[in-house]
Amino acid sequence: MKCKIGLVMLALILPGLCVAQTSDKLLEDFKPSTLNQPGKEYPQVNSQGYVRFRVEAPDAKAVNVSLGLGGKGGTDLAKGEDGVWTGTTAGPMDEGFHYYHLKVDGGVFNDPGALNFYGSARWESGIEIPAHDQDFYATKDVPHGHVQEILFPSKSTGVTRRAFVYTPPDYGKSDKKRYSVLYLQHGWGENEYAWMNQGHANLIMDNLIAEGKIKPFIIVTTYGMTNDVKFGSLATFDIKPFQTVLVDELIPYVDANFRTLSDRNHRAMAGLSMGGMQTKMITLGNLDKFSYIGLFSGGTFKMDDVNATSGFKQKVKLAFVSYGGREMNNERMRNFVGDPNANAEALKAAGINSVLFVSPNTGHEFLSWRRSLREFAPLLFKD
Amino acid sequence: MKCKIGLVMLALILPGLCVAQTSDKLLEDFKPSTLNQPGKEYPQVNSQGYVRFRVEAPDAKAVNVSLGLGGKGGTDLAKGEDGVWTGTTAGPMDEGFHYYHLKVDGGVFNDPGALNFYGSARWESGIEIPAHDQDFYATKDVPHGHVQEILFPSKSTGVTRRAFVYTPPDYGKSDKKRYSVLYLQHGWGENEYAWMNQGHANLIMDNLIAEGKIKPFIIVTTYGMTNDVKFGSLATFDIKPFQTVLVDELIPYVDANFRTLSDRNHRAMAGLSMGGMQTKMITLGNLDKFSYIGLFSGGTFKMDDVNATSGFKQKVKLAFVSYGGREMNNERMRNFVGDPNANAEALKAAGINSVLFVSPNTGHEFLSWRRSLREFAPLLFKD
Repeated sequence: MKCKIGLVMLALILPGLCVAQTSDKLLEDFKPSTLNQPGKEYPQVNSQGYVRFRVEAPDAKAVNVSLGLGGKGGTDLAKGEDGVWTGTTAGPMDEGFHYYHLKVDGGVFNDPGALNFYGSARWESGIEIPAHDQDFYATKDVPHGHVQEILFPSKSTGVTRRAFVYTPPDYGKSDKKRYSVLYLQHGWGENEYAWMNQGHANLIMDNLIAEGKIKPFIIVTTYGMTNDVKFGSLATFDIKPFQTVLVDELIPYVDANFRTLSDRNHRAMAGLSMGGMQTKMITLGNLDKFSYIGLFSGGTFKMDDVNATSGFKQKVKLAFVSYGGREMNNERMRNFVGDPNANAEALKAAGINSVLFVSPNTGHEFLSWRRSLREFAPLLFKD
Repeated sequence: MKCKIGLVMLALILPGLCVAQTSDKLLEDFKPSTLNQPGKEYPQVNSQGYVRFRVEAPDAKAVNVSLGLGGKGGTDLAKGEDGVWTGTTAGPMDEGFHYYHLKVDGGVFNDPGALNFYGSARWESGIEIPAHDQDFYATKDVPHGHVQEILFPSKSTGVTRRAFVYTPPDYGKSDKKRYSVLYLQHGWGENEYAWMNQGHANLIMDNLIAEGKIKPFIIVTTYGMTNDVKFGSLATFDIKPFQTVLVDELIPYVDANFRTLSDRNHRAMAGLSMGGMQTKMITLGNLDKFSYIGLFSGGTFKMDDVNATSGFKQKVKLAFVSYGGREMNNERMRNFVGDPNANAEALKAAGINSVLFVSPNTGHEFLSWRRSLREFAPLLFKD
């Protein structure tokens, strides 16, 4: 199956503007980012969402940080008399997680102060702007599930592949209990680490379970860029290589090695951005295996999809679509996918369990997707 | 308990010289390091163990790589007409894993081509020189165990702490089988990721199990620098904070959440470098909880230890000590710990199961410790 919605995705995966509301006065209450390397004081974030950087490179001619107000070339740092480069973003960043990197004398490097996260097909620096609703993905004193790194054989690609499996807190307590499974995919240029590291999927689940908002289930994440798709070639994306890995190799491995419920009623798939595109292609082509579907900033369901997919109405128990609020205002997106609200309502009118979630004041970024998972999870595995 | 062997450790944790034998002629058979970021061509390694670097920083004045012949200030790169900095180490590196970083115009950055590994209390670049015996830690087409990230509560430190738990391939296949546990510690400036990422402990176990050389057991790794010990202050190291986390918090959590055999006969502890020092202090102070002990480049057992520790002869089922061959020739080490051979023989003569392993042609580095684990594991949990 070739991708027919590639152009839509091309529009969607354009980075959202990282601009929150501007503020009158810069507050000097900067604190180290929670994603700094141990003991590192910089980068720092203030209560308004401004970010301050500090980079030692005494003999450099120019140091720039890619993070800054959208479309304005990031943030130029200035060298002090001590040879240290410092600077503050010209405005507040969106709440949540952002990738960034440094440019030092024309070379791209990571910020030695920050932890690294895989995005843009490289390990980038990461920063976290505390969100007003960060409590739902905080590390709390509740029972925690485990995130298991598994290595599974893949004949189709000829290598041993990696996946991560979140097992809920009570998984190790019982010998008998079986669990539903959500396969959860990252976006273009990310990898199988993204949903746990950047997305805090495990902590979101721990907290939802502790609050009694969901029945515990398993989450599986694996690398979806099986065919090394280039950013510019999503329009001709071939789902087959990844579909083979996921459906024919990973799912049987997970079902053989974990206490899963392996029928279609107990299997869901969701993905963000490119992972949403893959989710739509794989699930609609394999409705004997999946019942619940989530597209996070990664496409939409239209009545055309329903009409073109045999058994959609009978078999899809949840057609969940989400976007960051800033994406909803993106004109190019609307040109391609139409009005997500109208799409969702049309499916509802046709008797389909269609849900649209819009994350307030975020763009094509991880806070949108953390919130999407929080909204999606309680709707899963209802019978 | 205060550390009485701190000075010994200070000598031991000095980096070994990364010099292998010199060779006549530089062979132009360079290949990308296996630890490069996906798709990155550099750094590269040739069949002799030379490393070649390539760093883009067109406007930089000077680029240096910390990796090179020991004590010679690393490797200076030279700028080509294309603005790209390149250079090759002046000699071959030791087989195995090495940390390194770049100095760009006076600032310390990681190599954008390489993956990062936590060492020296920061995420450093890493490179792998293929070892002649690398087969024992290779990713093979054998059943693989899982590496589980766990978050456990720690009252003594007031935070939720992370550990990794290797469960062997058959762990998920049975509901009933219980396993012995090895607690395995990293060195100074490293963290709980080190034994799996740099050490390939999981792959070493998978391969030993597939070959029938060991009975499957569980491995647990956690962060050992609980009291933020500085490199220069090991002489006054206080074991209490970490001992509390490990013995009073982590072990009960693991025993409650995994199918372990929780008596002393089925619990071992080992550690590398500073982790060896911690292992010796914790195990000899808690022989009601540990039976098998391993010190990898991290101290030795003398008859003084046996005589000073109540129950040593009766309770210690294995006193394993290992070093890299180059460490054995280190005069300072001998001044502090004496002759490891003589120490091991003295314990043997006293009827103790004392084993000394020396890793050929390696120093204070991870290939020594991978090999140490390979030698140590088959000696564990004999009754």
